[in-house]
Amino acid sequence: MDPFPPLQNDLLLRAARGEDTPRAPVWMMRQAGRYLPEYRALRASSSFFEACRTPALVAEITLQPLERFDLDAAIIFSDILVVPQAMGLEVRMEKGIGPSLPDPLRHPDDLRRLAAPDVPAELGYVFEALTVTRHALAGRAPLIGFCGAPWTLMAYMVEGAGSKQFARARSWLHRYPDASRELLGRLAETLAEYLVRQVEAGAQAVQVFDSWAGLLGPREFEAFALPCLRDLAERFKQAHPDVPCIVFARGAHHALQALADTAYDVIGLDWTMDPAAARRQTGPKTLQGNLDPAALFADPATLRAAVRRMLEAFGPRRHIANLGHGMHPDHDPARAAVFVDAVHEFSETLRKAE
Amino acid sequence: MDPFPPLQNDLLLRAARGEDTPRAPVWMMRQAGRYLPEYRALRASSSFFEACRTPALVAEITLQPLERFDLDAAIIFSDILVVPQAMGLEVRMEKGIGPSLPDPLRHPDDLRRLAAPDVPAELGYVFEALTVTRHALAGRAPLIGFCGAPWTLMAYMVEGAGSKQFARARSWLHRYPDASRELLGRLAETLAEYLVRQVEAGAQAVQVFDSWAGLLGPREFEAFALPCLRDLAERFKQAHPDVPCIVFARGAHHALQALADTAYDVIGLDWTMDPAAARRQTGPKTLQGNLDPAALFADPATLRAAVRRMLEAFGPRRHIANLGHGMHPDHDPARAAVFVDAVHEFSETLRKAE
Repeated sequence: MDPFPPLQNDLLLRAARGEDTPRAPVWMMRQAGRYLPEYRALRASSSFFEACRTPALVAEITLQPLERFDLDAAIIFSDILVVPQAMGLEVRMEKGIGPSLPDPLRHPDDLRRLAAPDVPAELGYVFEALTVTRHALAGRAPLIGFCGAPWTLMAYMVEGAGSKQFARARSWLHRYPDASRELLGRLAETLAEYLVRQVEAGAQAVQVFDSWAGLLGPREFEAFALPCLRDLAERFKQAHPDVPCIVFARGAHHALQALADTAYDVIGLDWTMDPAAARRQTGPKTLQGNLDPAALFADPATLRAAVRRMLEAFGPRRHIANLGHGMHPDHDPARAAVFVDAVHEFSETLRKAE
Repeated sequence: MDPFPPLQNDLLLRAARGEDTPRAPVWMMRQAGRYLPEYRALRASSSFFEACRTPALVAEITLQPLERFDLDAAIIFSDILVVPQAMGLEVRMEKGIGPSLPDPLRHPDDLRRLAAPDVPAELGYVFEALTVTRHALAGRAPLIGFCGAPWTLMAYMVEGAGSKQFARARSWLHRYPDASRELLGRLAETLAEYLVRQVEAGAQAVQVFDSWAGLLGPREFEAFALPCLRDLAERFKQAHPDVPCIVFARGAHHALQALADTAYDVIGLDWTMDPAAARRQTGPKTLQGNLDPAALFADPATLRAAVRRMLEAFGPRRHIANLGHGMHPDHDPARAAVFVDAVHEFSETLRKAE
């Protein structure tokens, strides 16, 4: 295949490496999604996972937000649950409800049902989609690959669906600690290969989503979620030491210091975390985040003021601007534009004022 | 009516006031509930809110866990959503799903639909239930009354149902800040009268549940949730300065210091909060919590070790032992007994070792 087009906007990569940038790079978690009418139109004719498995469609969906907004990164359209699928668990996406696993792990014996997947074969469609998308991006911005963190994937694999409490999944850590460690370890190994191959297929940075980290107490996070998160980053960095690796452990407010002490280059903050306090705990790491997505429901002037406050709280260096959680289906695309433009405008002004 | 029987176990009241106690008092959030077969048997013949409106049934349900476990408090069986009901909103409890409000607040104009309720008339059934229950308790332990915090009630009143994100409710804070403040203020006023009258009916301590505090960023918590929480405590304390008042703002990890600076006597911690760190932020306040409810899924020896660690982390004074969240329907009552007994045993030993 042809070489990839040269990258014209490397702000995100430079900020992730801790280098100074003329303004904060910005992207939005779930920037391709249901809040965009053009996404809903494209998705009307195919199921969620069918779309994930169709590289041309993935490329189109991934690029949609870049057509509208002046974004500094694209993130591949996919889902964290493609990995449990590749390991042999059925995962359905139910419209308006979310993911459902009709036959989840109920007992440690069920670990035998899990395959050690042939990653290039089982997830080849993701790699192909990354390659196609990277070409389609034409160097406008770096392409981010991603995966779910081991604990977050385990949470779905044991619970069988999204849940407010994930009580069944959390019970495993207490009831079956050895089986939990085995499962988390196997996930970390598969996920590391998955991320490494995403880079080989075209990803220029990767993010690990530990969406349910906040359900764990500090001790359980440290005993179960953190070791496999750390292991995942180390395996990835062995293969690709120069490719930025972002971790977003939503709700793990007690773990910022511990996360800073891993191989991840960038620590994502959710909207409940205070950027200044996080800076003190994470030292020289680049931070990502963290505007309250609900601020996008405010009028443009209020939203712009909130963006400005956020940028001031992070300071002018080592910051990748983002939301503190994903875009919501009820969001107005026009407000996403206000967010992106305000980041550009204010972060340039703040840097010049230094 | 006859005077209430004399209280034989005032450990919780003393600990709430910061006095030394020979051991940590213990109770469990949702200690009366679906994990108890005798609760499920009683509830089989009546809907959830019918049960709440039947004082004899409330008394029986409230006392059920005290028949089984050596608890240091009873908490009245009721629901935080009886207050929105009293203000004129329909609330249904859907089996296996949770609360649903078929006609929620969709626009600031809807505030006109809300009544300033005649609290003694609209919520008389709760006060009657408290009186009956306090007599039935016969002084075995203090009776705790409760309410939802203004923000948490607003979350349901705007969202119309439980939700992982409560995006609609959070959007109000940004879209309609004035209407949000008005709603929160009206709720605080009604809730203060509600708590005051609960004490007059028999409650010996009260707890305010801000179950969805953790959905707010630090700034929104401070601007919206905290002022009305503070106001609620001040109004309550004006009427009953000596009655302990507990606040449980789940997920508000950034707000412990601010909460300590209010009229609440006791700060409840969820299971993600570190007791030692919380001590540093809350000074001389009594703390309540915070065992991970999922630890009740562990074998008894592991559970006992977790209880011991928790007690050591809080230290021997100004601690009311509890879970960091409510009992779960899947919990085994036998494990609740292990939890309660372990608190008694270890907290006595730890105090003697001083």
